[in-house]
Amino acid sequence: MFKKLGEQIRKRPAIGWMIFAVVMVAVFLLGLLAASITERRAEIATLFNNKKIEIEGIEPKSDLWGINYPREYETWLKTKDMDFTSKHMGNTPHDVLEERPAMVVMWAGYAFSRDYSAPRGHMHAIEDVRNTLRTGTPENGEGDMQPGTCWTCKGPDVPRLMHEKGIENFYKAKWSDWGAEVMNPVGCADCHDPQNMGLKITRPALIEAFERRGMDITKATQQEMRTLVCAQCHVEYHFKGDTKYLTFPWDKGLTVEDMEAFYDEAEFTDWTHSLSKAPMLKAQHPDYETFTMGPHYKRGLSCADCHMPYKSEGGIKYSNHQVVSPLKNIANTCQTCHRDTEEDLRLYVYEYQDKALEIRDRIEEVLPQVHIMAKIAWDNGATEAEMATALKLIRQAQWRWDFAVASHGGSFHAPVETQRILAHSLDKSLQAQMELQKVFYSHGIKDFNMPDISSKDKAQEFINLDMKNLKEKKEKWVNTVVPAWLEKAKADGKLTAQL
Amino acid sequence: MFKKLGEQIRKRPAIGWMIFAVVMVAVFLLGLLAASITERRAEIATLFNNKKIEIEGIEPKSDLWGINYPREYETWLKTKDMDFTSKHMGNTPHDVLEERPAMVVMWAGYAFSRDYSAPRGHMHAIEDVRNTLRTGTPENGEGDMQPGTCWTCKGPDVPRLMHEKGIENFYKAKWSDWGAEVMNPVGCADCHDPQNMGLKITRPALIEAFERRGMDITKATQQEMRTLVCAQCHVEYHFKGDTKYLTFPWDKGLTVEDMEAFYDEAEFTDWTHSLSKAPMLKAQHPDYETFTMGPHYKRGLSCADCHMPYKSEGGIKYSNHQVVSPLKNIANTCQTCHRDTEEDLRLYVYEYQDKALEIRDRIEEVLPQVHIMAKIAWDNGATEAEMATALKLIRQAQWRWDFAVASHGGSFHAPVETQRILAHSLDKSLQAQMELQKVFYSHGIKDFNMPDISSKDKAQEFINLDMKNLKEKKEKWVNTVVPAWLEKAKADGKLTAQL
Repeated sequence: MFKKLGEQIRKRPAIGWMIFAVVMVAVFLLGLLAASITERRAEIATLFNNKKIEIEGIEPKSDLWGINYPREYETWLKTKDMDFTSKHMGNTPHDVLEERPAMVVMWAGYAFSRDYSAPRGHMHAIEDVRNTLRTGTPENGEGDMQPGTCWTCKGPDVPRLMHEKGIENFYKAKWSDWGAEVMNPVGCADCHDPQNMGLKITRPALIEAFERRGMDITKATQQEMRTLVCAQCHVEYHFKGDTKYLTFPWDKGLTVEDMEAFYDEAEFTDWTHSLSKAPMLKAQHPDYETFTMGPHYKRGLSCADCHMPYKSEGGIKYSNHQVVSPLKNIANTCQTCHRDTEEDLRLYVYEYQDKALEIRDRIEEVLPQVHIMAKIAWDNGATEAEMATALKLIRQAQWRWDFAVASHGGSFHAPVETQRILAHSLDKSLQAQMELQKVFYSHGIKDFNMPDISSKDKAQEFINLDMKNLKEKKEKWVNTVVPAWLEKAKADGKLTAQL
Repeated sequence: MFKKLGEQIRKRPAIGWMIFAVVMVAVFLLGLLAASITERRAEIATLFNNKKIEIEGIEPKSDLWGINYPREYETWLKTKDMDFTSKHMGNTPHDVLEERPAMVVMWAGYAFSRDYSAPRGHMHAIEDVRNTLRTGTPENGEGDMQPGTCWTCKGPDVPRLMHEKGIENFYKAKWSDWGAEVMNPVGCADCHDPQNMGLKITRPALIEAFERRGMDITKATQQEMRTLVCAQCHVEYHFKGDTKYLTFPWDKGLTVEDMEAFYDEAEFTDWTHSLSKAPMLKAQHPDYETFTMGPHYKRGLSCADCHMPYKSEGGIKYSNHQVVSPLKNIANTCQTCHRDTEEDLRLYVYEYQDKALEIRDRIEEVLPQVHIMAKIAWDNGATEAEMATALKLIRQAQWRWDFAVASHGGSFHAPVETQRILAHSLDKSLQAQMELQKVFYSHGIKDFNMPDISSKDKAQEFINLDMKNLKEKKEKWVNTVVPAWLEKAKADGKLTAQL
């Protein structure tokens, strides 16, 4: 049989040549593909081996890093752009107190009652901390409302300063001491090692918190680091003791109850509420903690997977440094795993948010009443013993509310946990109200009128904030002190070109 | 070149024969595979074309269907087996009131306070409805606690009876009228058309509920039917008007608030609470409704996908009719889509359950207190006007609690929705308590002592249930009336062999 085949090819060589031609075309195409792969490899190799400048030590100026890594740098610059943060926000800082004046009353006696805007992109970090009424108008070493610790998350000048001055000295200084030092907003040196561009923890608080839990953060995998560099700042924390040492309250665990137990044991109080006199806790933004309690973390995802998705340009695959809601970019984030339409995925998230808002709204109805009832009780001669139960419940209720509400994206990161926390907050809010009603009756207080706190202005007036004065002083300060800081920084070579 | 190849084969035929041998082996193996496929096809064809018996009309006896479809029948028989339902359950009915005596007080004045056991498999449907104290001890046409409607979901004798007697006549009869008629527990004819074994809706209530919402259930796809046959029974419903016409309260939608609005508009009340006098609603088991609000339904899954996963035996693929928790069979249910370990998947479900239980536990602390406070208020001369707000809140709170708690698997089917509902229930429970505290003060009631309701016995004694008498009467009834029913059914040829 094979003799015959051989003979046929010998007799009709045209068939043989046809096969030969097809094979040749296939080989040629394979060659093209190989060339393309080689070219891409070469492009990547060029990028890493031929750095245009050499960066050494702690280099806070992101524009210098941008010379070597233009794609990451250019996307990072876009964190200035606030075209997408939520359904409601525009390009200006989003005034949460205007939208929810109840929060003014809930924070009475604390700086947050003056001013609380929704967070903006990394590029705005320094501008926003200077401009907020929460940092006051310190001048000539006087009038500081915050310690140096307050700068910790604002940018890569901080690891530089910690290196130069010592960690504790950085924290315990006055906030204004570093006004002409912290110039560069959250950028490259906050998370990267310039030698190999590997991810790096630059803030001691995270390392220390892991150590106290018996965990060695240097053993973290690359994927874990893609979450942990964010956890340097996107966490719950407090300023501990006289040195205002930045400390994460994680010793007993990461749940809302674990951290409360830590604060209770340390008898820590952020402030005493000016109406209710309750010993309050202010939750910061327990984003990392909440994320670890949700389905995405449990299935091995990192912050960067959804907030910094990979992009391709030519042969280069890089992660988008415009850290933003994954909903801005569903095709490259959610749809990497989920086979749902963009519209459906968006609606799933909105549904979680709306269901959390329902319970949040109720708490924000009850807790301002409770603070005001407590004030009336005090004004009518209630004793500390009578008030103790109510005040403890207020502390617990508001801590839970704040934990759930302050956590960026909490209702998405851990939807069931967030609902659980909000339910407990509402529970304790109403229990506090019930306790205060008992105090009312034992002091013959029949009823009380809720003041009109239907707008930010009215609520701030009710808690005796002289906002006109505060705003005028701040405006003047922004126009005089900040320019002086900038001038000094410029003279000291601490400003980058783009700033 | 090809000339040369041909010549080589001609010169050395051994190479040719080797290639030939390899090809022959491959062809032989292909042949084996084809034979196996043909054989499997033949097996399936035999199964469907050579039914051993012909089933016509409404045939309630599942053992007859089992002659044609032994695999489905044998797995259905296993619904008798209760080795796996939850962490806590054994093979006997699981006494929920024993575990949660608060529920006795919450249902005071309603049959559920006598007896409430966790549901068991389909095979137990008739046995359990006969044995529960909720159906009482009717004899000789007297003493019925329930109408005929109460049998609706118990088995395929029901569509037969509806066909023979008329739907309304079936519902409005006494429960005991059908005692010698409904013999076969939930089985084949409840969901299948004997002609083609297609899925079939046999209960009018579901069809009517769809019609009232302007939807034509006959247009449902096969995948939708794999949920809708379950939705014939696993839903919220009420017995409407004098004819006790089985009606799903879906006209305004399927959420807990939608159905409440339906009941409020109809001024429907399941019972008046014997302590608080609140006009109560009893949620049944809104399993379907809750499932439609969760992630699995929204992604196109049906009940059967997880509760009746496919099995293979030889050439036959069939769905497992031992309807049970998917956790019994994670490899064939969850892991069809989820690439998590069995242990992780189990823990995810338990976590949802535990987080719902936390809020549920709080409600079950507050609501019994509230009912008892209301009774004390009435006893001290409170007026209807004073009590109105509290009673409405009690109705709303308990309806939400019941909706979340009675829905089988609700905390898994729709975890965020279930937490939302429970949070609102706790909110309204505490608001009711606050209202009652006001009534207390205006009537000079200083305080009240909670009775000891720490066990089912104590709680039932507190609400004046003579359980000894009820149980004795029921036992006697089970030993006399039920055997008479069975005897009559046997004489009438309505019992199947296995019963």
